[in-house]
Amino acid sequence: MNFNKEQANRIEYIETVIKNYLPKEEGFQKTIFEAMNYSVLGGGKRIRPMLMLETYRLFGGADQSYIEPFIAAIEMIHSYSLVHDDLPAMDNDEYRRGRKTTHIVYGEAMGILAGDGLLNYAFETACKAFKVNSAERDSTVLYERIRKAAKAMEILGQKAGVYGMIGGQVVDIEGIHHEDSPLEKLNCVYKLKTSALIEASMMIGAILAGANDAEAAIVEDMAANIGLAFQIQDDILDVTSTVEVLGKPVHSDERNEKITYVTLLGIEKAKEQVEELTQKALAGFDSLNRKNEYLKELINRLITRIK
Amino acid sequence: MNFNKEQANRIEYIETVIKNYLPKEEGFQKTIFEAMNYSVLGGGKRIRPMLMLETYRLFGGADQSYIEPFIAAIEMIHSYSLVHDDLPAMDNDEYRRGRKTTHIVYGEAMGILAGDGLLNYAFETACKAFKVNSAERDSTVLYERIRKAAKAMEILGQKAGVYGMIGGQVVDIEGIHHEDSPLEKLNCVYKLKTSALIEASMMIGAILAGANDAEAAIVEDMAANIGLAFQIQDDILDVTSTVEVLGKPVHSDERNEKITYVTLLGIEKAKEQVEELTQKALAGFDSLNRKNEYLKELINRLITRIK
Repeated sequence: MNFNKEQANRIEYIETVIKNYLPKEEGFQKTIFEAMNYSVLGGGKRIRPMLMLETYRLFGGADQSYIEPFIAAIEMIHSYSLVHDDLPAMDNDEYRRGRKTTHIVYGEAMGILAGDGLLNYAFETACKAFKVNSAERDSTVLYERIRKAAKAMEILGQKAGVYGMIGGQVVDIEGIHHEDSPLEKLNCVYKLKTSALIEASMMIGAILAGANDAEAAIVEDMAANIGLAFQIQDDILDVTSTVEVLGKPVHSDERNEKITYVTLLGIEKAKEQVEELTQKALAGFDSLNRKNEYLKELINRLITRIK
Repeated sequence: MNFNKEQANRIEYIETVIKNYLPKEEGFQKTIFEAMNYSVLGGGKRIRPMLMLETYRLFGGADQSYIEPFIAAIEMIHSYSLVHDDLPAMDNDEYRRGRKTTHIVYGEAMGILAGDGLLNYAFETACKAFKVNSAERDSTVLYERIRKAAKAMEILGQKAGVYGMIGGQVVDIEGIHHEDSPLEKLNCVYKLKTSALIEASMMIGAILAGANDAEAAIVEDMAANIGLAFQIQDDILDVTSTVEVLGKPVHSDERNEKITYVTLLGIEKAKEQVEELTQKALAGFDSLNRKNEYLKELINRLITRIK
């Protein structure tokens, strides 16, 4: 398998799907459509859509039109969270991925509304998975298809919300302090802020392809470990990498006196954690007895990345 | 019918439903739960849940547990829109209904997140309508139930989003100017900002109770007229009422040089419009050939209110 070539193909496909589901820039409310599209089409790595699509394939999902609304929806949710994160009252960032942030280009009010618009539009878009083929007449088939989409919608909501990503954002913003069970809180932030959407992506892929509850639980666990390992690797790179390799400032956690896995456990223990979580994730993968070499390599590269 | 007594009963029931679906204030992310609950339990008139419930009854809806998730969800969406509206970058309001606004009590970052949290939680809550009675085995019945909930979810998303409420907010914030087809834009704002959620409320009530497409279309039209009449009545009261009756400053549109139905058409024409829209709405109601005296009176009072 030529991983890079395979990946380029997939990214191209995913970009097309996302673009197809974004609103047309017309009508009296044109500005918000522009702001939404600007936010989503800012050149992200599309990690979540990719994990969703590959988990769908892992479980034998063939009809891509069924999962496409969710592929677009998960990226809209990821994008809105960045737009709101960048607002002056939050992280107050003027640049993201080398471009001006949404509220800098469109103003703060439109930044808030574009974020709201994307979050809402994610659920509208996911609803398109409810559309069943009207030629189908067997009510058991119809029921199964809509039931799986409903389950996927439920997971999307839970993992994106106050018991998922937004919840993690709250704990992060309130800050973690040494006197205050810091490792437990840090785990909570990483689990909710990063793992939750990865769990949603992989679980939705699995469920729409017909995975049963036991399989979905293994996938959830696997995704949780991937997200956590990814985040700890982030802490490590901030200490061990260089600005040239990483493309962003290093030692920023130290400067901001931020509590991380490295400051709490030291660099060696942090590396051990990443290794342990990776092994757990891959063991979960193997226990499914299903084959998707590309997905396995993707997971490996996500965690052991050097930037 | 003793309208006031009936209304008190319904409000009590709706308050209970809303409270039951709000999050418990516990866990590391406790603050956002507090901020969400503070925002929703701020003493609104619960107009949208009321219209939803009564339209459900109008079409013979009996099992209230089926519609309760949507009753809570529509009010969460209405509440989040107020929380974000009040933010410094938007209307910058410190008080609402005599209480400090959410961002004043919890800070601006938490105001943004609480709004996001409520919007997301609305969809999570609505997903609860997908839970079908597990004793049910007939797949046609199962399919019908989940299909109606999916349709309701779709409407909730559309009417709340960029083609509905949020879209209206965008046009409103960008401002309406005399050189710029002002009546058309004003209609767009009123239709999206106010009517859209009323349409969602009444359509969801109708659809979950089993209304067919033609009936749902009549309900949508009726709700659009109610929303528009309600909003024009708002313009009129700003000119004709007193601060004592209205409980808020009058002549604020004039002070803010705001374009309204009254400034565009004059007070008499504006009143004629309200009358005409009311008649249309009631004619729609009558054409359904269904009886709900309370709902009819509620609609009448909503439009012809004096405050």
